[in-house]
Amino acid sequence: MAPDAADNGLTDDNAASRMRKAKDAARSIGLLTDTQKRDALRAIADAIEGAADEIIAANADDLRRGRETGLSEALQDRLSLDEARVAVLAEAVREISALPDPVGRVLDRRTLPNGVALTKVSVPFGVVGVIYEARPNVTVDITALALRSGNAVVLRGGSAALSSNATIVSVMRRALTGEGIDPEAIQTVDPFGRDGARALMTARGLIDVLVPRGSADLIHTVVTESTVPVIETGAGVVHIVLDETAPLDWARDIVVNAKVQRPSVCNAVETVLVHRAAAGRLVPAVVDALVSRGVTVHGDEDVLELAGQGVPATDADWAAEYLSLDVAMRVVDDLDQALDHIRRYSTQHTESIITMNDGSAERFVAEVDSAVVMVNASTRFTDGGEFGFGAEVGISTQKLHARGPMGLAELTSAKWIARGAGQVRG
Amino acid sequence: MAPDAADNGLTDDNAASRMRKAKDAARSIGLLTDTQKRDALRAIADAIEGAADEIIAANADDLRRGRETGLSEALQDRLSLDEARVAVLAEAVREISALPDPVGRVLDRRTLPNGVALTKVSVPFGVVGVIYEARPNVTVDITALALRSGNAVVLRGGSAALSSNATIVSVMRRALTGEGIDPEAIQTVDPFGRDGARALMTARGLIDVLVPRGSADLIHTVVTESTVPVIETGAGVVHIVLDETAPLDWARDIVVNAKVQRPSVCNAVETVLVHRAAAGRLVPAVVDALVSRGVTVHGDEDVLELAGQGVPATDADWAAEYLSLDVAMRVVDDLDQALDHIRRYSTQHTESIITMNDGSAERFVAEVDSAVVMVNASTRFTDGGEFGFGAEVGISTQKLHARGPMGLAELTSAKWIARGAGQVRG
Repeated sequence: MAPDAADNGLTDDNAASRMRKAKDAARSIGLLTDTQKRDALRAIADAIEGAADEIIAANADDLRRGRETGLSEALQDRLSLDEARVAVLAEAVREISALPDPVGRVLDRRTLPNGVALTKVSVPFGVVGVIYEARPNVTVDITALALRSGNAVVLRGGSAALSSNATIVSVMRRALTGEGIDPEAIQTVDPFGRDGARALMTARGLIDVLVPRGSADLIHTVVTESTVPVIETGAGVVHIVLDETAPLDWARDIVVNAKVQRPSVCNAVETVLVHRAAAGRLVPAVVDALVSRGVTVHGDEDVLELAGQGVPATDADWAAEYLSLDVAMRVVDDLDQALDHIRRYSTQHTESIITMNDGSAERFVAEVDSAVVMVNASTRFTDGGEFGFGAEVGISTQKLHARGPMGLAELTSAKWIARGAGQVRG
Repeated sequence: MAPDAADNGLTDDNAASRMRKAKDAARSIGLLTDTQKRDALRAIADAIEGAADEIIAANADDLRRGRETGLSEALQDRLSLDEARVAVLAEAVREISALPDPVGRVLDRRTLPNGVALTKVSVPFGVVGVIYEARPNVTVDITALALRSGNAVVLRGGSAALSSNATIVSVMRRALTGEGIDPEAIQTVDPFGRDGARALMTARGLIDVLVPRGSADLIHTVVTESTVPVIETGAGVVHIVLDETAPLDWARDIVVNAKVQRPSVCNAVETVLVHRAAAGRLVPAVVDALVSRGVTVHGDEDVLELAGQGVPATDADWAAEYLSLDVAMRVVDDLDQALDHIRRYSTQHTESIITMNDGSAERFVAEVDSAVVMVNASTRFTDGGEFGFGAEVGISTQKLHARGPMGLAELTSAKWIARGAGQVRG
């Protein structure tokens, strides 16, 4: 695909040159003070509101193309921007501007016997790359989060939002220029299509960390094809275990909340495992509550027999991230079998146990190897906002660097500073 | 290459099955108490000392093969084990056993407005993979570090140490069995040659983190070919800047120490940049001191003219990680030019500035984007032991998860634990 000439008229314009500009800009962005970063974000918020008409017009282009290419109603809705939604975008940036600066925190401090003073401080990564799909709000959110933490950002959004994203990026860059900040800190490789994504995934030395946000397929591609460091986010085959002692009201309310409140997100429950000793007491009522809210229960034989409703589960159901009003349900003999099932099918995002037995709870907490392990709470709480981070970069399902909901702190690295007076090693 | 039948007689024995065994074993290893882990390490140390003859005999096989295949004297020396060196191996394990348990530390704690209590605790990664070259001490060190932090380990050592490593692994596994601990927590894929290394690099779901230790080539291969999360370690094109106000004695002592004390390691200085205003005062004396200790100075024209000795530097010298008694030296116009040079050639390991000027020091500290940035100290201090970590896994030159010297804490991940009483999301 040809470069977006309106955005940048350089003849050598390509993904690599844009990433190089981001890297150059990262130097000055990393040295901005807290106040400068807050001001920059407020200027971006104002600019987005001020350019609402321009953004909505670009969005209309995307929507028209979406209709022509048969984009589903649901996706059209997620893509669509109006005055109110643009105001929400701007407000999100203002909220991020108000968060504490994650840069310059002292993480460790020690003095060597020879008097050399060591300090470990948080520093920006440098350049954060993001590959994402769907809604244009990610374009704004992730840029604000990256800048707040002193990073430059290189964006690769979904092709369905191409015009919206191009306009939003352009508006945000103008806002930086107005603040005397290098606008090259915000880059997009959208005009270069798949080549842009490939360039981003292999830009060693230019991209310090790459965060994929979107479908399991997208994440899988990024994780396997990238040679730059990646933080894996998102896919959630989330389990709730109803233990022998689970109170019926907690079991029912938590399963229903975890499935129904927002089925399309990664912290929604996908599989419920019920202890055999409690199955007769719990399954009929929990299934009833789910079905009455429009959920299809994919049950094993025991579940179907006890509930008298539902559809038979196949092997594929245990591995399914439905992201819809579907849930798989299985009766297990005991906690061991529940833990085995989780080990086999979990994506290590979030699992919860409902129990009054402290021993079961502690075993579950110790043995389940997931980012967030819960006792007697809804899996829907796995969320940066709910955790009190003020914003969320994504939910890491890997063990390196970040695990679970990621806030601004996870967009920083660290640097050791050693101050001496001529010391040498003996 | 055929599997090592003496080590494991299973017909389905291959790299994948060994990694699967490590993953299964990781469950029980992760649940060991502090005392159990200490006891296991002390048992390993005792077993290594007790099997000194067996280990030295296996090492003799490696040395014989090394001589036959023309292994250099230096590498033969690094490979070679005698009674004293075996005792050092065992002692290193005892020292690691005495370090505090890095698992179970509370990293964050918060209570949500609805009463859900969140705790973020450190947990083992699960399975740590290591690809390394050279000395058999890495086999012992990294195994002890992995077990101390509750991890299983999969090793891939250098082919030159094949027999030594096989015997050491076998001895360590026996020691675990003697302690009633699953010996499958220690695995090697050495018998499978290059296929073993490839399996390790692509074992998503089996290997939680992979640490390469060795040459720049090895690290490059691992970083670019791995689909599992990697911590990049090691390569150090380390700079020292002699600023306008650098005292001659500090400049000379630190440069000599950083180059000569142990030239073969990654924290040894490779390039010295001298401020033009101080070049006449510093270059002759510093070069004299280096040359008198056997160092070849690869200088730019200014250096050669001022020093009256040395050899001309080519472009390749600025990018060289000599790891030998060679150093590149260049006169720069000012701190800006020094920073430009570092940005271009540094591997972001360690850089130091020698200066009496606080402004220069603070600019250097803020603008140099390396794992360790020093003022008036020898770059040789970048070391887990020197930093007081008690042990070192390696020196991370990436920004994700770990940066600079890595201790036991860097071999852990984190888990969020949420405890509620039936809370659901509103």
